[in-house]
Amino acid sequence: MNIILLSGGSGQRLWPLSNDVRSKQFIRLFRTGEGELESMVQRVYRQIRTVDPEAEVTIATSRSQVSAIHNQLGKNVGICVEPCRRDTFPAVALAAAYLRDVRGVGEDEPVVVCPVDPYVEPDYFQALKRLGERAAVSEANLVLMGIEPVYPSEKYGYIIPADKKNISKVSVFKEKPTEEVAREYIAQGALWNGGVFAFRLGYVMEKARQLTGFGDYERLLEAYHTLDKISFDYGVVEHEPYIEVMRFSGMWKDLGTWNTLTEAMDGPCIGKAVFNETCENVHVINELDVPVLCMGLKDMVVSASPEGILVSDKVQSSYIKPFVNEFDHKVMYAEKSWGSFRVLDVGKDSMTIKVTLNPGHRMNYHSHQYRDEVWTVVSGKGRTVIDGTEKKVEVGDVVTMAAGSRHMVIADTELQMIEVQLGKEISVYDKQKHEMPIYTRVLNDLPI
Amino acid sequence: MNIILLSGGSGQRLWPLSNDVRSKQFIRLFRTGEGELESMVQRVYRQIRTVDPEAEVTIATSRSQVSAIHNQLGKNVGICVEPCRRDTFPAVALAAAYLRDVRGVGEDEPVVVCPVDPYVEPDYFQALKRLGERAAVSEANLVLMGIEPVYPSEKYGYIIPADKKNISKVSVFKEKPTEEVAREYIAQGALWNGGVFAFRLGYVMEKARQLTGFGDYERLLEAYHTLDKISFDYGVVEHEPYIEVMRFSGMWKDLGTWNTLTEAMDGPCIGKAVFNETCENVHVINELDVPVLCMGLKDMVVSASPEGILVSDKVQSSYIKPFVNEFDHKVMYAEKSWGSFRVLDVGKDSMTIKVTLNPGHRMNYHSHQYRDEVWTVVSGKGRTVIDGTEKKVEVGDVVTMAAGSRHMVIADTELQMIEVQLGKEISVYDKQKHEMPIYTRVLNDLPI
Repeated sequence: MNIILLSGGSGQRLWPLSNDVRSKQFIRLFRTGEGELESMVQRVYRQIRTVDPEAEVTIATSRSQVSAIHNQLGKNVGICVEPCRRDTFPAVALAAAYLRDVRGVGEDEPVVVCPVDPYVEPDYFQALKRLGERAAVSEANLVLMGIEPVYPSEKYGYIIPADKKNISKVSVFKEKPTEEVAREYIAQGALWNGGVFAFRLGYVMEKARQLTGFGDYERLLEAYHTLDKISFDYGVVEHEPYIEVMRFSGMWKDLGTWNTLTEAMDGPCIGKAVFNETCENVHVINELDVPVLCMGLKDMVVSASPEGILVSDKVQSSYIKPFVNEFDHKVMYAEKSWGSFRVLDVGKDSMTIKVTLNPGHRMNYHSHQYRDEVWTVVSGKGRTVIDGTEKKVEVGDVVTMAAGSRHMVIADTELQMIEVQLGKEISVYDKQKHEMPIYTRVLNDLPI
Repeated sequence: MNIILLSGGSGQRLWPLSNDVRSKQFIRLFRTGEGELESMVQRVYRQIRTVDPEAEVTIATSRSQVSAIHNQLGKNVGICVEPCRRDTFPAVALAAAYLRDVRGVGEDEPVVVCPVDPYVEPDYFQALKRLGERAAVSEANLVLMGIEPVYPSEKYGYIIPADKKNISKVSVFKEKPTEEVAREYIAQGALWNGGVFAFRLGYVMEKARQLTGFGDYERLLEAYHTLDKISFDYGVVEHEPYIEVMRFSGMWKDLGTWNTLTEAMDGPCIGKAVFNETCENVHVINELDVPVLCMGLKDMVVSASPEGILVSDKVQSSYIKPFVNEFDHKVMYAEKSWGSFRVLDVGKDSMTIKVTLNPGHRMNYHSHQYRDEVWTVVSGKGRTVIDGTEKKVEVGDVVTMAAGSRHMVIADTELQMIEVQLGKEISVYDKQKHEMPIYTRVLNDLPI
């Protein structure tokens, strides 16, 4: 199975756990059979691998998510990086071109496209496989998955099939309706449109040529910023006279709000939380190192992270977006390809962060124009390279770097440092990357 | 007016703002007329000064509160430090002896004793003044304040006066009743016992001699740890045949729980908080630097500090104590005489704190046996003394101190440093104080 997972959005609706650099699909909220926490993207990837160990998985995403994906799924996952946001048609076209030109997938082979964040069971991926198998042989150019509705949702578009067979011709598509209209659709046998579809690779490559003028990966990538923002629905689906829909009746949840997300949790809390006996239907997701004490709460979600604290009635939590838009979005925690960092303190002309590097990883070799930095190693061992000179470091070592100094650190074990940044208007944009000095590159042939 | 303010307790009922080293009376929750935040102790002290600028105020407290009192009230306030906890009779006796032997108050002069944390208006202190004036001339050895009840509370003891005059003989004292019994008391004209009383100084000194065998400050202080734990009620009040009560009908609130405390706040929040339009009767006290977003909450209190987060129905919040007892009480924030510190990060064998010294203040000269420390100055200017050597420091300076090294810092302006502590089993008890080298003491004649 060739599968493109669309991984988008910054997910403000799950503030304070999601932010500009961490989308909801990367939050570790679910437990594996072994009791480990995993994120939506880890869960989906694990489920695909279970159903089809040979699946060719490509994640179509933006540059900002690449580190988190590598960190959570390892280095071997296929990633097709969109140079900028250009809606779903260019994203699918680029990923299709990547599959053909980089991964060597044939134009006759079927490709399945699906969002990276549905909350599903393995039967869903069995259904994706059947969807691809149908696309390979169907007379239709597109085969959609139609999810059997469990309530008259206003959140989804609807697909009305021509009949009640497992695979039907699509009679008509309907935009997100009111609840009342949704009831009517469902009475007519309508299915939810979960944004899941399959096609033969050559079909989308042909559409790419027609709509963008570019038919290969290199040129699509290069011209990507010039492409029009067109949705796949608007650019392709609406012009296709014959589309099939395949029914799916298994569990499918879109965990886009705290309300739906907490329903999928297998316990009342993640992180430190205490509930008194008068709490009912309360969920706590606490990323801080201190306890949350809940007393007398009903139907509520409490979420605490280095970015802020949400205390909300579950139904009200779906109206979070405009409030979060107003917040000053300093990123207080981020996963990187090499580990993670957390902001500990923000002063007037200083910032203190805790940096954790995973064993065998290293930072980019870089410098800052407007700030000095001080590292104090608090756990582990590694090597710093400062202005071309490599030096071993261990717990208690202090490294000072004046503005302009080129630096990086290699973690030989897991390595933790307290980094104090000193300067006016400290910004993530004050960062210049440099080539490593050659001898160091030879000595340390490590992934970036 | 001679007034003894009893400042006790660690106030777990206001967790997470109060803790082992910060009692509720030091939390800055109220606004002065100028819009500044002030604590209960600051409010009471300011009110006394307004009513009687000449008042001789002595705060009877434990060693652990001395820094916070100096920090909040300045150096000139009289403090009588109890060497250990010994209930209210020894505390009052020691403070009375302090007034006579250290402050030179005459034995005929009246003294008023009152808890440090009632939430009152200036008329209360006018009443205290009258209470003292009455004690100076009364035939009774004790004159109590009787507060006119506003509801049948189960939280207070009751005083039943012999008649309805402004000053009456006490007929009988009643322990904390049930609500029903409280109604009966009130129907009989009972008054709340707020623990406020006045006496002539010589009377309590005589009681001290009788009950402890010691009649002066030096010897009481020395023998304090050997004294029996006796309450003032049990040791004195119950044996006194003729006690007067003076009515007080002004505003008087005991802000011992979140429920009562939030009633006294003049707005819905202190710190960063956002409420959506469906919130009703919600109070947020947020000491963190990130926002609290409240949606769809009713009758609730949310409090966040470096120690933890409370989310509670207001009525339920009064049952907090047993839950807080279970928490691991690492002190994450503390006010000191020289400023404050906040724990930023706790690692396996490290701890990172932010230290703020007030201008003109300094730490004790000290060393640690089992940990190294690294200071990075992030704002201000000062001087360090490390193993006897004084050195100027400013922003960006890094000072490393191996275990055993004697060190301190003097703040010439407000001075902030990130301190990284490195060692196994880091503990506040690993601290040895030392005499400053003589030449340094001469150079820096600064308060400790």
